[in-house]
Amino acid sequence: MNAHTPTVTVGELPASKKVHKPGQLHPQLRVPMREISVHPSAGEPPVTVYDSSGPYTDAAVKTEIERGLPRLREAWIEARGDVERYEGRTIKPEDNGFVSADRLTPEFPVRNRPLHAVGGRAVTQLAYARAGIITPEMEFVAIRENLGCEQLRSKLQRDGESFGAAIPDFVTPEFVRDEVARGRAIIPSNINHPESEPMIIGRNFLVKINANIGNSAVTSSMAEEVEKMVWAIRWGADTVMDLSTGRNIHNIREWIVRNSPVPIGTVPIYQALEKVGGIAEALTWEVFRDTLIEQAEQGVDYFTIHAGVRLPYIPLTVDRVTGIVSRGGSIMAKWCLHHHKESFLYEHFEEICDICRTYDVAFSLGDGLRPGSIADANDRAQFAELETLGELTKIAWAKDCQVMIEGPGHVPMHKIKQNMDKQLAVCGEAPFYTLGPLTTDIAPGYDHITSGIGAAMIGWFGTAMLCYVTPKEHLGLPDRDDVKTGVITYKIAAHAADLAKGHPAAKVRDDALSRARFEFRWEDQFNLSLDPETARAFHDETLPKEAHKVAHFCSMCGPKFCSMRISHDIRAEAQKEGLAAMAAKYRDGGDLYMPVNGTTGSTTKP
Amino acid sequence: MNAHTPTVTVGELPASKKVHKPGQLHPQLRVPMREISVHPSAGEPPVTVYDSSGPYTDAAVKTEIERGLPRLREAWIEARGDVERYEGRTIKPEDNGFVSADRLTPEFPVRNRPLHAVGGRAVTQLAYARAGIITPEMEFVAIRENLGCEQLRSKLQRDGESFGAAIPDFVTPEFVRDEVARGRAIIPSNINHPESEPMIIGRNFLVKINANIGNSAVTSSMAEEVEKMVWAIRWGADTVMDLSTGRNIHNIREWIVRNSPVPIGTVPIYQALEKVGGIAEALTWEVFRDTLIEQAEQGVDYFTIHAGVRLPYIPLTVDRVTGIVSRGGSIMAKWCLHHHKESFLYEHFEEICDICRTYDVAFSLGDGLRPGSIADANDRAQFAELETLGELTKIAWAKDCQVMIEGPGHVPMHKIKQNMDKQLAVCGEAPFYTLGPLTTDIAPGYDHITSGIGAAMIGWFGTAMLCYVTPKEHLGLPDRDDVKTGVITYKIAAHAADLAKGHPAAKVRDDALSRARFEFRWEDQFNLSLDPETARAFHDETLPKEAHKVAHFCSMCGPKFCSMRISHDIRAEAQKEGLAAMAAKYRDGGDLYMPVNGTTGSTTKP
Repeated sequence: MNAHTPTVTVGELPASKKVHKPGQLHPQLRVPMREISVHPSAGEPPVTVYDSSGPYTDAAVKTEIERGLPRLREAWIEARGDVERYEGRTIKPEDNGFVSADRLTPEFPVRNRPLHAVGGRAVTQLAYARAGIITPEMEFVAIRENLGCEQLRSKLQRDGESFGAAIPDFVTPEFVRDEVARGRAIIPSNINHPESEPMIIGRNFLVKINANIGNSAVTSSMAEEVEKMVWAIRWGADTVMDLSTGRNIHNIREWIVRNSPVPIGTVPIYQALEKVGGIAEALTWEVFRDTLIEQAEQGVDYFTIHAGVRLPYIPLTVDRVTGIVSRGGSIMAKWCLHHHKESFLYEHFEEICDICRTYDVAFSLGDGLRPGSIADANDRAQFAELETLGELTKIAWAKDCQVMIEGPGHVPMHKIKQNMDKQLAVCGEAPFYTLGPLTTDIAPGYDHITSGIGAAMIGWFGTAMLCYVTPKEHLGLPDRDDVKTGVITYKIAAHAADLAKGHPAAKVRDDALSRARFEFRWEDQFNLSLDPETARAFHDETLPKEAHKVAHFCSMCGPKFCSMRISHDIRAEAQKEGLAAMAAKYRDGGDLYMPVNGTTGSTTKP
Repeated sequence: MNAHTPTVTVGELPASKKVHKPGQLHPQLRVPMREISVHPSAGEPPVTVYDSSGPYTDAAVKTEIERGLPRLREAWIEARGDVERYEGRTIKPEDNGFVSADRLTPEFPVRNRPLHAVGGRAVTQLAYARAGIITPEMEFVAIRENLGCEQLRSKLQRDGESFGAAIPDFVTPEFVRDEVARGRAIIPSNINHPESEPMIIGRNFLVKINANIGNSAVTSSMAEEVEKMVWAIRWGADTVMDLSTGRNIHNIREWIVRNSPVPIGTVPIYQALEKVGGIAEALTWEVFRDTLIEQAEQGVDYFTIHAGVRLPYIPLTVDRVTGIVSRGGSIMAKWCLHHHKESFLYEHFEEICDICRTYDVAFSLGDGLRPGSIADANDRAQFAELETLGELTKIAWAKDCQVMIEGPGHVPMHKIKQNMDKQLAVCGEAPFYTLGPLTTDIAPGYDHITSGIGAAMIGWFGTAMLCYVTPKEHLGLPDRDDVKTGVITYKIAAHAADLAKGHPAAKVRDDALSRARFEFRWEDQFNLSLDPETARAFHDETLPKEAHKVAHFCSMCGPKFCSMRISHDIRAEAQKEGLAAMAAKYRDGGDLYMPVNGTTGSTTKP
C-alpha cells in the first residue's frame, strides 16, 4: 500500500511442502502440515511435522499484509448462531498513546465490525465442549496433533515417563472435546480472530511454545513487529504475545492480529497503563475494562491477567533479593499499596470473565509474583499467588471461560518439579504456561540456554506451553536473530519434553534424521533439522564444496576417523561373517562370544 | 621465536583480579582464584570464583609460549623421591605422521627429559592417598574447591538434592585424600606435566567441564590449537582433550601440554592409527603400547581407552539406527571383527595399567559403544560395555591407577538418570564423565543446547565432568567462537547442576548478580556474568550510551514498565507504611491482610 507496508518472510522451507488434511466430522477443514521429503535413495516416505507457520510458507498462497490473512474460521463461528456483529467501540486517541498524526502508524486498511455473543451466552470452546459439541476447532486440533501418523500408528512404540499425564495413542476429536471440557486444555480462539488456525494447549498434547514480540517506549516499529511475528511462527512459535508498551499500540496490534495465523496473547494492563500516562496509581477498573473490550474486539486470543497479586501478598515480597519482576505484577502491587486497597483485578474478576466469555478470550492467569532470581524461587509470595490463581480458575470455569496458568521464572533444577506438582494440585489441572524457568542467574546473554534447560524439564513434568526466552533477556530488546534463536531453543526444549513424555509420534523425526546421518545423506540431515539454514551453513564452513554433501565421512573427523563410515564397514563385515550365526554364537556362548546374562549383558571375564 | 609461534589471548577479565591462597600443610602452594569486584555503592566484598584460566589472566605474569608455563609441580614431584629422569623414547617420523620437513610443525624449543617411577612403584595420587599421604596436589584442590568462602562458611545455607552424594560443607585436604583413596575422585596429574594446576573430578566436588580441541586431517594448525586451548580455559574449561588426528600430532601436542595449566586428555588410539596409515586392522598392541609411552612421557594427564569394546558386543550394535559412533570404538570394533579376536586393549589392560601407574596417567575408560541417536539410547550394547568398564575399574584400582568412566551420548530425558544410577552401581562410584547427553537429534547446529539440557541434568544426578558439545557438532570442526559457545553453555550446565546439588558456595555468584540486577548496577551485572563481553555488547545494542549503564530501568521495558524500578518504589512505600506493621497485620489477619495458613499462604477469599 505504501512505505509503511511491512514486508515479511515468505516461502517454503527446504525440501518442504505444505499439505492439508480434511476433517471427517467437518469435511471442509484443511489442516496444515509440513511434509519434508528425503532423498529417493532412502526409500522412505516424507516426514510430516507440525506446522505453525501459516499461509506464509504455502507456495499456493500469495499473502498480502495490507489485506490480512483469509478469515478461515468466520463461517464456523457464524454457523453456531450465537454471535452478532455490532458497531464496536470507537478508537480513541489514548488507544495509540496520544501519538501525533505524523507519527501515527496507519490504521489497518480493512475494518470488520466485531462480533460478540448474543444474549449473554458463553461462546467459548469450553462451553461447547461441556455441551457435548465437537466444534470444527476441536476436530482441527485433533488432526493437527497426530502429525499425519495415521499410517504409522500400529508401528509406533510408546516409550516415556509422563508423570501421570494421559497422552493417548491417537488424538480423536472426542478426546479433544473431553480435555477441553475438563479444563485440562484450551483452544485460544477469539471469535474476532477468525484468521487463526486452531491449536491446543494442554498436558496431554504436544508441548507448545510462545514467542514474545512487541515494541517498547524505547525502540522498534510496526513493520518490525509484524515481521517478527511471521518470523517467529516460521521457526515454530505456536502462539505469539504482543507485549508492546509504546505508542501506536492499538494500530500495531491490529496489523499483527489481522496477519497472524496463531493465537495472539497480550497483557492488557500494559496498554491500560499507557492510557493513564504511565502512572500505576492512576489506573482504574473502568480504564482497564475499556481496554479489555478494545482488545477483545480486535481479536486477542488470550489475556494475561495478574489478578493473583493481592494486597496481602505484597509484604511477602519485600525481603526478596529481586522483589517483583513481573511488569504487570509490579504495576498492580504499586496500585494496591498506594491505594491500600485490594486489587481491582481480583475484585472485578467475575466481570472480567463476563467479557472473556462474550468473545472467547482465554485467560492466562499471570504470575505477577514469580521469582526473579534463584534466591527467590518457590517462596511464600509465589505460592500464595499460585493458590489464588487456583481459586480464580474455578471462578472462570464456572463462567465457561478457558484458563491457563502462568508459572516462573527463575528456579534451580531441584525446585522445578515442585512448581509443576503444586500447579496441578491447586489449579485443577488447568494447563501450565511457564517462562523458562532459568536454572541459574549467572549467564546474561545466554538466558535462552539457562532457561531452555528448565523449560525442557518442566515441559517433561507436564507444562503445556513454554514461553521462550531470548539471548537478550535482561539486557535488551530481541531483534530478528534473537527471536529465531529463542524459538529454535524452545522448540528443542518442547521436543525433548515430548520425547521424554513418550508422545507417540515425536520420535519419528529424530529417527529419520538419525538414519540420514548414519547414511551420509547430508541434505536430508539439514532438511530434517529445526534450522536447515544454520545446519547447512555450519557444514559449509568446514567443507564448502558441493561434492562434500555426498561425502561418506563427517567433516569433523575426516575419512579415516569417521566412526559411521567404519560402522558401515563393520556391518558389511558382519554380513560376510554371517550376522545371524554370530548373534547365535553370542547368545549360546562359546570361546569368543561370551554368554550374556540379564537384560543388560553382564559378562564373565575370560 | 619465529612465524610459527602462536599468539594467544591474555589479560584479565573485566573487574577481575587473580589472587592466590597459600596452603597450610604445604605453605608454598599458591592456589589461583579470580576475585570479581563490585561497585563500591553495593558495600559488598568481591565475589571469588573458580579460575581455570592459568597464568594467562594473571597481570603479574608474562607468558611466553615458546618457553612454556612455569613447572610449578616439579619440586613437589621430585620431593616424593620415587621418580627419576631418563632419556625417554626417541621421536620417530611416524609420531608426526611422516610429514615432510617443510610441513613439519617445529619442535617445542625446550626439551626436558621425562620422569618415570623407580622400581615399579605407583606414583599416582591414588597410591599416595591410600598410603595416607596428603600431597600438595590434594591440598591445592581442597583450597580451590572452597571458592574462598571460608568467611562466608557460617552464613551459607544448604539447599539442594544431591541424590546420595556426600558434598561436605567445607572441603578439607583430608576429605580430598579420602575421596581419592576411595576411587570416588581423581586428580589427573601426570608427573611429566608439572605445569598443571591441580584440579579434582568427583561427584562430591564442583562439576567440571572438558573442552575438545584438535586438528584433523582435513583442517587446522598448531597455532590455532594452542590458542583454542588458552581460549577454552579462559572461559572456564577445566580440562582439555587434544583429539588431533592429522599430521604433526606429536609436535602440536607438545606445544599444547607445555602451555597448558589444565590437565590434557587424549585418545591414544587416534595417533596409533595414524602410525599404521589409517588402517584399523593393521593396529597392534606394540604400536599402541609405544604410543602410550610416547604420550605419557609428554605429560598427557588422562587417556581415553576403549577397552570395553569387546568382540562379543559388536553383534549387539548391528541393528542400531546409528551403529557405533565413537571413533575409538569403531576402530576397535573393526579390528576385533577383522581378526576375529578379542580386543587387544582388553587383553592387555593390566599392562596398560602398568604404564599408567608409572607416570600417573589417569584412565578415562571410553564408551566406545555409546548411543549415537535417541533410538539407540540405553540399549544392550551400551550397558554391556558399561559393565565391562566396571570390571576394568577394579583392575585399574588394584594397580593404584586413577579411573573415570565415560558416558553417553544421545539420551532422551527420561532415560538419563538410569545411566547415572547404573554407572554408580557397576563402576563402584568412580567419577562419571559424560558427553552431553543430547536430548534430541533434530537440531544439528544447536547441539550445544540439545546436549546442554542433558548435561545439566546428568550433572545434577551425579556426573563429575561434562564433556562439552559445540554448535558445530555433527557438522564441522569448531572454530574459536564455537569453542567459547560450547564452554559457556557447559559452564551453565555445570553451575546449574552445582546449584541443584546444593553445593554450599555455588549460589553466592547468582545472588551477587541478582542483587546487582535489582539495584541497576549494570556494570556489576556484566562483570559477574560468565561472559561479560557478550552481556555488555547485547546491552549496548539497545542502549548504547554510557549513561544507560546507570539507567534505573531495563532496556527491554523502558522506564515506565520496569518492574524492578517499581519494586523499589514499592519498597519505599512499604517503608513509609511501616513494613513491620504491615507484616504484623498480615500475620494477624484483618480487613486487608488476610490470615495466611500453612507454609505457602493459602487465603480465605473475602
